[in-house]
Amino acid sequence: MPIDVALAVDIGGTKVDAALVDATGRIVPGSRHRTASGPGQTPDTFADAIATACGRSASHAERAAGAGSPEYRIVGVGVGSAGPLLGGGTRISPLNMPGIRDFPLAPVVEPFANGGPVRIALDGRCIAMAEHRFGALRGVRNGIAMVVSTGIGGGIVLDGRVVHGASANAGHVGQVWVRRPGAGDPVGATVEAVAAGPATVRWALEHGWRGPDARAFGAPGQDTPGEGTPGLDGRALAADYRAGHPVALRAVRRSAEAVGHAIAACAALLDLEVVAIGGGFSRVADDYVQLVEAAAHAVAVLPAARDLRVVRAALGDDAPLVGAAVQVHEPAGR
Amino acid sequence: MPIDVALAVDIGGTKVDAALVDATGRIVPGSRHRTASGPGQTPDTFADAIATACGRSASHAERAAGAGSPEYRIVGVGVGSAGPLLGGGTRISPLNMPGIRDFPLAPVVEPFANGGPVRIALDGRCIAMAEHRFGALRGVRNGIAMVVSTGIGGGIVLDGRVVHGASANAGHVGQVWVRRPGAGDPVGATVEAVAAGPATVRWALEHGWRGPDARAFGAPGQDTPGEGTPGLDGRALAADYRAGHPVALRAVRRSAEAVGHAIAACAALLDLEVVAIGGGFSRVADDYVQLVEAAAHAVAVLPAARDLRVVRAALGDDAPLVGAAVQVHEPAGR
Repeated sequence: MPIDVALAVDIGGTKVDAALVDATGRIVPGSRHRTASGPGQTPDTFADAIATACGRSASHAERAAGAGSPEYRIVGVGVGSAGPLLGGGTRISPLNMPGIRDFPLAPVVEPFANGGPVRIALDGRCIAMAEHRFGALRGVRNGIAMVVSTGIGGGIVLDGRVVHGASANAGHVGQVWVRRPGAGDPVGATVEAVAAGPATVRWALEHGWRGPDARAFGAPGQDTPGEGTPGLDGRALAADYRAGHPVALRAVRRSAEAVGHAIAACAALLDLEVVAIGGGFSRVADDYVQLVEAAAHAVAVLPAARDLRVVRAALGDDAPLVGAAVQVHEPAGR
Repeated sequence: MPIDVALAVDIGGTKVDAALVDATGRIVPGSRHRTASGPGQTPDTFADAIATACGRSASHAERAAGAGSPEYRIVGVGVGSAGPLLGGGTRISPLNMPGIRDFPLAPVVEPFANGGPVRIALDGRCIAMAEHRFGALRGVRNGIAMVVSTGIGGGIVLDGRVVHGASANAGHVGQVWVRRPGAGDPVGATVEAVAAGPATVRWALEHGWRGPDARAFGAPGQDTPGEGTPGLDGRALAADYRAGHPVALRAVRRSAEAVGHAIAACAALLDLEVVAIGGGFSRVADDYVQLVEAAAHAVAVLPAARDLRVVRAALGDDAPLVGAAVQVHEPAGR
């Protein structure tokens, strides 16, 4: 009997990942392929990048069959994409790809669906689906899977269901206002503008920290869940945090505090049990998640919000692919 | 055939309302009764206030039968209560009644249920149920019913369902941080602390407006959906807004802007179509809702958030009772 797998696709701000994922959330070893994308894409090069990654993963199923290893049967395509989604999830306009607007995604991936369904969701929603089904939100009926990386985004589970929203774009947790803008912060700052990786590195540099180089960490103002690496500046900041550099300490604590305050607002609004935090920049400090939880509790007014737990996401960089596949294997749970 | 009605109960910060409500959302004329409650309550006086209001409404069903008018049969009790709820909705600890903590509500109302179910929800959730079923959120799959009164609260509809939350306390929209704290605002201000009725009147008085008297408008820091009256100071502020008093104009616009910014954050987070605003203080200006919508659109980043509509709630002060009854008539929709 062949093993049913979804062809899972993760479309991020700078790359396209594809892989075969079975119904238990396992990524088939050797099936994961990546192509580059990014701000310079045109619709043609972008479609090529997606189709190339998909083609390589799909051919893994064929090669495996030929080599006598377990047979895999692709039963559909699941995509998690950088947002926003348009047309209820049929088209995408990734914020950091100005050349890609209203891009019809389904026709590009459909040839790889093997006659099965094509399901597309926001990447943050895929991460929430993955953590809810297999990870840190398992058994949790009300929670957020949050990504702190070059942007801040996520997906929301309420009353046991992963939220869609009116246009399939729910989960932009980075757009919550910060509680206490600092002297140098922009007016009307969102938690993403204050606390994401690039913003935190910039703040540290402005306050006397000397990073490894002046290279930009990434473009701010974008929700880019699924980006896995904290970047060179983020790694240097992490090293200096561990070494006790005073500005690095302040910068990381400032980020965690803003994230905690945003979570406190979400927890009061939505009555949450757990927030699971992942994303490259969340690894800037071993105690980042503890700092976030302490900040959330410190400003919580309602009893329910004081019971909120903040934990590390469990699935790491696999979450977008695993969640993209959940859409195919468990359509009712979408 | 008797008409099935729910005995609906609305427990607010200062009063208890009870009424008979049929499955179409109609309050049976003459069945609505109110008793006083408030900060001075003890568990005994509070239980009396609830039982008295319930008893009067219930006896209306009996009297109606005796008088030859349509017969009404009570099929259950639905309660909407000031929060927070505890024990998943079986007990309440209304914030502005310090003597009422962990109060077991169900046993007080159960004698009036006529053998039917007892359902208890947060008042904001009841308002959302009422507006979703019969009012301004009818046909809307993603929206918030928001109350701007002595506090700011509400209830949330996502993907067609009215959200419960982990402990039945979802909907505290007043706890979202404001986007742009002003010079005199408290550090870490919530939209409730800045934009609710008492806060707005206070701001106006501090900026040279002369209210009708110095009487307190209500206690700040509480979500009290369902409170119907803007209070003496609110009415005077409304009159001066209409008359074009410059401080009254600034005060009302400041409130609407803060509410609009909070809604923008919620709309980005949850991907909403419509926010319906009710509550006594929302009537402070004929164009209050338009001002709120303009503020929300002005700061919206995502395309979906720019499509958000802000409208007036349709059911006014009946909403908590009507929503409380929906719990009984449509338990599956809870």
